[in-house]
Amino acid sequence: MPTRFIHNVFFWLKNPTDADEAQALKAGIRTLFSIATVRDAHLGKPAPTDRAVIDNTYSYHLMLMFDNLEDQTTYQGDPIHLKFVDDCAHLWEKVQVYDSDASLLSNA
Amino acid sequence: MPTRFIHNVFFWLKNPTDADEAQALKAGIRTLFSIATVRDAHLGKPAPTDRAVIDNTYSYHLMLMFDNLEDQTTYQGDPIHLKFVDDCAHLWEKVQVYDSDASLLSNA
Repeated sequence: MPTRFIHNVFFWLKNPTDADEAQALKAGIRTLFSIATVRDAHLGKPAPTDRAVIDNTYSYHLMLMFDNLEDQTTYQGDPIHLKFVDDCAHLWEKVQVYDSDASLLSNA
Repeated sequence: MPTRFIHNVFFWLKNPTDADEAQALKAGIRTLFSIATVRDAHLGKPAPTDRAVIDNTYSYHLMLMFDNLEDQTTYQGDPIHLKFVDDCAHLWEKVQVYDSDASLLSNA
């Protein structure tokens, strides 16, 4: 399982019950899937799991997989990504990002 | 890109500078990769990205991909997973979990 670099983004919408705003965010996120360096992509909602260690308060979760850090940096500057931020940043109240690189493991 | 259910786990080690404890956690996490319902797996460390929205304080990140919620439930009860928790829970100070299901999107 050769996964390398994962960019996880959790979005909290300003108006989570507004269907139009949710739809706008989902449509915007899906434009990101076509960026050339993206190897795998996932858009999901909180699962109905419920333990003390689980955060299920977010609205949407985006996972993007890249071959390496450089490809993720290229993604950040891609016009499609910049347009997504311009178009959709007003929709969210909070974003939480975790960037995780498998190549940094001492014995990967 | 047919990703379905993602189980993201972030671990904060009690003693993050203890190489033996880090090695024990990594070895334990890797045993999980062989559980039958796991479709893809990633173990990483915080990338050297640094923006206000990024949390890079964790020690290790585990991403496990499943076909659906039921397969993730099966994983939770698998003896390999239970042994991992028994063997390694003393190593971490905090665990943060996000379970994300693509099948819950209204227009997936």
